[in-house]
Amino acid sequence: MRAADIIMRKRDGNELSREELSYLISGYVAGEIPGYQVSAWAMAVYFRGMTPRETAVLTELMLKSGKAIDLSGINGPFVDKHSTGGVGDKTSLILAPLAASLGIQDPMMSGRALGHTGGTLDKLEAIPGYRTSLSIDEFRDIIRRDGFAMTGQTAEIVPADRLLYALRDVTATVESIPLITASILSKKAAEGTGGLVLDVKYGSGAFMKDASRGEELARSLVDTGAALGLKVIALLTNMDEPLGNKVGNFLEVEESLDCLEGHGPDDLMEITLELAARMVVLGGKALDATEGRRLCEEALKTPRPKELFLQNVKSQGGEPAALMDMRGTYRSPVSAEISAQRGGYISRIDAWKIGHASVFLGVGRNRTEDPVCPFAGVEFYHKSGSQVKAGEPVMKVWAADEAGLKAALPGLTEAVEYSDTPPPKRTLILKEIR
Amino acid sequence: MRAADIIMRKRDGNELSREELSYLISGYVAGEIPGYQVSAWAMAVYFRGMTPRETAVLTELMLKSGKAIDLSGINGPFVDKHSTGGVGDKTSLILAPLAASLGIQDPMMSGRALGHTGGTLDKLEAIPGYRTSLSIDEFRDIIRRDGFAMTGQTAEIVPADRLLYALRDVTATVESIPLITASILSKKAAEGTGGLVLDVKYGSGAFMKDASRGEELARSLVDTGAALGLKVIALLTNMDEPLGNKVGNFLEVEESLDCLEGHGPDDLMEITLELAARMVVLGGKALDATEGRRLCEEALKTPRPKELFLQNVKSQGGEPAALMDMRGTYRSPVSAEISAQRGGYISRIDAWKIGHASVFLGVGRNRTEDPVCPFAGVEFYHKSGSQVKAGEPVMKVWAADEAGLKAALPGLTEAVEYSDTPPPKRTLILKEIR
Repeated sequence: MRAADIIMRKRDGNELSREELSYLISGYVAGEIPGYQVSAWAMAVYFRGMTPRETAVLTELMLKSGKAIDLSGINGPFVDKHSTGGVGDKTSLILAPLAASLGIQDPMMSGRALGHTGGTLDKLEAIPGYRTSLSIDEFRDIIRRDGFAMTGQTAEIVPADRLLYALRDVTATVESIPLITASILSKKAAEGTGGLVLDVKYGSGAFMKDASRGEELARSLVDTGAALGLKVIALLTNMDEPLGNKVGNFLEVEESLDCLEGHGPDDLMEITLELAARMVVLGGKALDATEGRRLCEEALKTPRPKELFLQNVKSQGGEPAALMDMRGTYRSPVSAEISAQRGGYISRIDAWKIGHASVFLGVGRNRTEDPVCPFAGVEFYHKSGSQVKAGEPVMKVWAADEAGLKAALPGLTEAVEYSDTPPPKRTLILKEIR
Repeated sequence: MRAADIIMRKRDGNELSREELSYLISGYVAGEIPGYQVSAWAMAVYFRGMTPRETAVLTELMLKSGKAIDLSGINGPFVDKHSTGGVGDKTSLILAPLAASLGIQDPMMSGRALGHTGGTLDKLEAIPGYRTSLSIDEFRDIIRRDGFAMTGQTAEIVPADRLLYALRDVTATVESIPLITASILSKKAAEGTGGLVLDVKYGSGAFMKDASRGEELARSLVDTGAALGLKVIALLTNMDEPLGNKVGNFLEVEESLDCLEGHGPDDLMEITLELAARMVVLGGKALDATEGRRLCEEALKTPRPKELFLQNVKSQGGEPAALMDMRGTYRSPVSAEISAQRGGYISRIDAWKIGHASVFLGVGRNRTEDPVCPFAGVEFYHKSGSQVKAGEPVMKVWAADEAGLKAALPGLTEAVEYSDTPPPKRTLILKEIR
């Protein structure tokens, strides 16, 4: 078997066999097949795609490139959630304790902010002391105790994905549905979860700009998940506008606490509850999403979800009391307000522009090695549908430094779109795919 | 500028700028841009192609990655020929001395056999003592004295192509018309030639299997050549059947001598004369191909072309007397005859099957580092159009060793196709593109 022949077969539109994919992936992980062959293959996959069978085999091979986490000895059910990434998307921080309060264990491995999208690990690290690099033993112990744990990927988990993702990132081969599918599901399968709720976002602030590509990805994830023995439900949700009223690492922790107390902003609550409802269904605690949602709404009326969150903060090295003290005040001294450029209705606040400007503020990063600022961010006073007067403040922003603030302001201002009449109500959840 | 963005722009079907291509190519040659980015770009080019402007810029950048040969001080005109590669294609050995006999200088840099196609350097090295790695000074001196010289590429010539070709070879990105164009023309422009006749082959034994792809390549070569200031004429010629009656390194030197004496096989003579006619036209020695061909036919009635060939053999370290002594007798002791499997007409001898089997015989090689055997090969007693009786010998073959002979025989036998009625006459030259 020769790597060049395998690349050629994919280039010419053929389905690769398990043996061919295994030769390529295990050879790459072992350092026997060079990056220049794997990147050429990835680009051929970008153009030619993969069959569902190929995607499932690739996912399985990537999963088997490392260790899977063994959760035996902990009572399930295990259900996790994964989002394809957005702006202001802090649902993970809410869903894990909410699900745990209903007896569902969430072994959550998350990523970091990159480009305009935020990352769960960066948000958690805005909590003083919070550790996101747990050992596998710690991860298991905390799940057993708190019902969930939230950590970054360890080196043992899916090394093939780490290598392949780094290569795809610099060779313009990220945007391939089968490769995205294999990357997401190999990691999720390695966590040890049995059920998975996917928040597949589409719109300006999402990876997939249009709903049809988002649906294609959701379909690929659901089908491939099934082939791997995972129970998967995907929601296709809109990411044209940031989720919730706060964007920024500590700011999003705060807003998660609001939700856990039952009073988060409507759009965030809606998406959180719909995702949570599916976690409850996959965990076998409800027969359908309607019943699941009702259970979640009831749980949020109790102090249990927030207690579980704070318990987890403590378990992972953070200081719950310090967190509660900082709430509402932990902000960068470098700040500004953005005012309405005209009177009328806000028709949209463009998620991509907010996300992009947030990198300048210090919320996100362009390169994986860049640091982020915990107390930078954006708070919206108004979102789409609000009626505003010219000059009225629309949002307040906090930046890591003056230069970043200056760089961010034009984009933040441009992000606000206006109309003379009330805009149509946004459809937050386009469809469920299962 | 980031290589990943350049790859993405090509992936998305955009035309790259000179600055972008220069960043990529000069960065690769300097070792600053890794192969995995260049191979991903090459695969994107495979799928998206390049505009004529892009192809010309790439060719020019590759040319400028190294030194061009300075032929000033030698009287021109300089005209070279390049073939895209075939089986039994020895026209270079005939054309260079034939053109030189008409006052046209040929600074010929050639390649080696690879896969089923033969290479001029391997053929020349079958002549005892013949040196194909001339220094640039030797190359110039021999052209000045003999009117032509034949050498391999030196390290100074188009290093970008050497690097890029090696990468493309192992990443299934060879078969891209703009990349082939840039590879061929950057080397030819670096030789110092002013005119170039291209033999673009199509058919089973060619790189391009169908005529339309061959024509596309010919058109790209002619247009890009013009953009670089080269005068280019291309002939689109058929390579469904080996050219001439002999395939093999020394065997092809012998058949070249036959042609230089004016009595080569019809198909080989026809293609040689048509190519030579265009060299004469580009050299300004004839007004059109008809006049050019007449001059070539007249030249072949004189001893001059063969004398120039033998003079070049001497100039490049070979022994003309030894060569003439070996003629007709220098054959491997391991041989066999292939007989007709049935009676009837031979409708085709499949060039690809012959070329492929020849690698087993020792004529060619699968990897650039493999040696070739000088005295292995095939001699056809019959070709398409011949009427044969079942059991009558069709060809004789010589192999480097018994194992190679055994491996080659089935393919050689299968290469002969039969029909009950006389096959239509082959069209050797499909069209001229200029």
